[in-house]
Amino acid sequence: MKNLKGACIFGQSGGPTSVINSSAAGVFIEALKQQNITAVYGAEHGIVGILGEKFYDMSKEDPKELELLKYTPSSALGSARYKLKDVAEDDTDYKRILEVFKKYDIRYFFYNGGNDSMDTCNKVSKYLQSVGYDCNVIGVPKTIDNDLYGTDHCPGYASAAKYIATTIMECNLDAKVYNFGLVCIIEVMGRNAGWLAASAELANYKGLGADLIYLPEVPFDVDKFVSDVAAVCERNDNKCIAVVSEGLKTADGKYVGDFKAGANDLFGHATLGGLAGILGGIIKERLNVKVRPIELSLMQRCGAHLASRVDVEEAFNAGAFAVKSAVAGETDKMVVFERDYNAKEYSCKPVLMPLELAANTERTVPLEWITEGGKGISEEFVKYALPLIQGDAKAPLEDGLPRFAQLKKIYAQK
Amino acid sequence: MKNLKGACIFGQSGGPTSVINSSAAGVFIEALKQQNITAVYGAEHGIVGILGEKFYDMSKEDPKELELLKYTPSSALGSARYKLKDVAEDDTDYKRILEVFKKYDIRYFFYNGGNDSMDTCNKVSKYLQSVGYDCNVIGVPKTIDNDLYGTDHCPGYASAAKYIATTIMECNLDAKVYNFGLVCIIEVMGRNAGWLAASAELANYKGLGADLIYLPEVPFDVDKFVSDVAAVCERNDNKCIAVVSEGLKTADGKYVGDFKAGANDLFGHATLGGLAGILGGIIKERLNVKVRPIELSLMQRCGAHLASRVDVEEAFNAGAFAVKSAVAGETDKMVVFERDYNAKEYSCKPVLMPLELAANTERTVPLEWITEGGKGISEEFVKYALPLIQGDAKAPLEDGLPRFAQLKKIYAQK
Repeated sequence: MKNLKGACIFGQSGGPTSVINSSAAGVFIEALKQQNITAVYGAEHGIVGILGEKFYDMSKEDPKELELLKYTPSSALGSARYKLKDVAEDDTDYKRILEVFKKYDIRYFFYNGGNDSMDTCNKVSKYLQSVGYDCNVIGVPKTIDNDLYGTDHCPGYASAAKYIATTIMECNLDAKVYNFGLVCIIEVMGRNAGWLAASAELANYKGLGADLIYLPEVPFDVDKFVSDVAAVCERNDNKCIAVVSEGLKTADGKYVGDFKAGANDLFGHATLGGLAGILGGIIKERLNVKVRPIELSLMQRCGAHLASRVDVEEAFNAGAFAVKSAVAGETDKMVVFERDYNAKEYSCKPVLMPLELAANTERTVPLEWITEGGKGISEEFVKYALPLIQGDAKAPLEDGLPRFAQLKKIYAQK
Repeated sequence: MKNLKGACIFGQSGGPTSVINSSAAGVFIEALKQQNITAVYGAEHGIVGILGEKFYDMSKEDPKELELLKYTPSSALGSARYKLKDVAEDDTDYKRILEVFKKYDIRYFFYNGGNDSMDTCNKVSKYLQSVGYDCNVIGVPKTIDNDLYGTDHCPGYASAAKYIATTIMECNLDAKVYNFGLVCIIEVMGRNAGWLAASAELANYKGLGADLIYLPEVPFDVDKFVSDVAAVCERNDNKCIAVVSEGLKTADGKYVGDFKAGANDLFGHATLGGLAGILGGIIKERLNVKVRPIELSLMQRCGAHLASRVDVEEAFNAGAFAVKSAVAGETDKMVVFERDYNAKEYSCKPVLMPLELAANTERTVPLEWITEGGKGISEEFVKYALPLIQGDAKAPLEDGLPRFAQLKKIYAQK
């Protein structure tokens, strides 16, 4: 625990979310208040910007724009998918980071991301310790996948879940409108964990959900899927809504979505498409029903107009808490959420966990929450997720459209 | 012009929108107030419900739920795609409609839909006149495609345009977040008219739009498309957002989206997909860049959480105006919107137009609004569309999710 004085740098990493910038706002607004923080930098494209010495001087930004960051989706500083090598294998990047940190007197490092990003954060933290460079390092969690270890939930998840549940309710009303059938196959993200697919159950709870929900936690059997859909069609005038996680795998571990596109369009070219299209093709062929495949694609992770207020506030607080903790002397930790399940009302607070516990681990949906032989979700999940999606928090309208933050992005010079 | 006393029936037809139920609310709430309207019926699945004598007694519904209809997407009564034959060819359906109307003493008929639905409405109107059955018939416009003749714009269009523009702004922030390139191809609806694709220009106006916009009004050339994308990639680090209308056709009149899927997935089945996937495949193959095809699918027409307040109110008023006009003795007309382009502030009112003018005609985007050799949209369009997407109007939240109308749907008996 060392109280340090110097500059801080914050970086965003991995896939964007609706609220990753809320955490950025929390970090920046809190850091700009702190006496012991002499400069506040935002790294362009995460660790890549640190290596390239490209970062913005956040004190030059209009405070109103920093406030608008709370409601602006995607990573305003730019994100990265850069993996640091093990230091034993190649320490080039680490030496460069140290050089940059020394040059700018960086004594606080905040990194915002998911599993891979926490791995980066952990590696940097351990390296700086090993060379005796004083720098307080705190990871700030972020992922729509909700798969980080050690936290009740992850900032970004709730807003994606709210987007998915709301959209499924609306699509349910649309898809069942005719006096003829339609099988709707809705694909959501989640490569290894089914938290996002499970959020369809929130729509079910409101009576306008999916008939079938498939998570990657359970091996996917195509024949069983066809017979599940057939059974729903049989009892429901050929109307069926199935939600599938992009990460569905067959029992032998193959992703169902990994297909090789052939030369099959009007022009003799390969077409691109996802799991929903593949499963849609199978259903159409085997059951001879009308099918519409729907991918919620980028929208589920950047649909900030549907962000959860709880999520926006928690993401902001996670950022501010990271700064306060680091200034108080904490280092080598990640912010996690601890929920009090005994409290009458939803109650959740940020606490710290050793950074190495978060790196590269994955938290999947408890198998006991997956019901009906792998095609349903239990009420326990609804109890878990419903408090997270409460309230609205979105950018003000200007010309009828969201007014997102506009940063000047003035590079720091030294 | 005849002042009639008797029952009224209202039906919804064609593809759903975010605000078609706002018009239903306008019709029902106004009709229930009218002394000369002795019963208010809602047809299940439009004309199909009338033929099958399946309609709901709307006086049995809770007024609060009728109010919530304003914010509930899709067609609450159920929609239809049933085309009446020409009466000269086969008058069976017409005789049946007359029989049902007589049985229930229906003297007011309101039909809500697009081109095809106005054709149905017109045919029924003309038939009832020809047999001397007194019934005031008014069509209520609806279509996200915005392609009805004789009206400044159509209820439903503005909310879809707002959904598309907002979503493109968010996807723009997401798609450009990395330090590597991505070509995003976003497909929107619009089979013959490009009003929906053009709405991407509203996002451009806010600085977060599409680099390229293609409408079906202009023949689509695949090679030119590839070189357009290549040019954007060249100057913008391989980052490009292209918006395409589902109805793009080549110069010889073939839909680009009409492809025959081959046996090409992991399981040897055909896959389903749309235009974005086809064009995405071509771009990936020819330019060797990362590509993400996105279809806004059903969401663009049922995303009521992003409805425009102007649209919701106008749709409601169109329904109420239809009832007031019919009670005042008007018949054989359709409600259209007349905008005062000389007024300082946006000013638009419902007026009546002969029904036969609306049936089966199509209004496309003026060619002079399509710029840059077919890949851009002019400022004139923004001036036209921006006033339509103003304001929010959405269902109240319950458990963090929209509380849509819940109708009892009690069948009328006679």
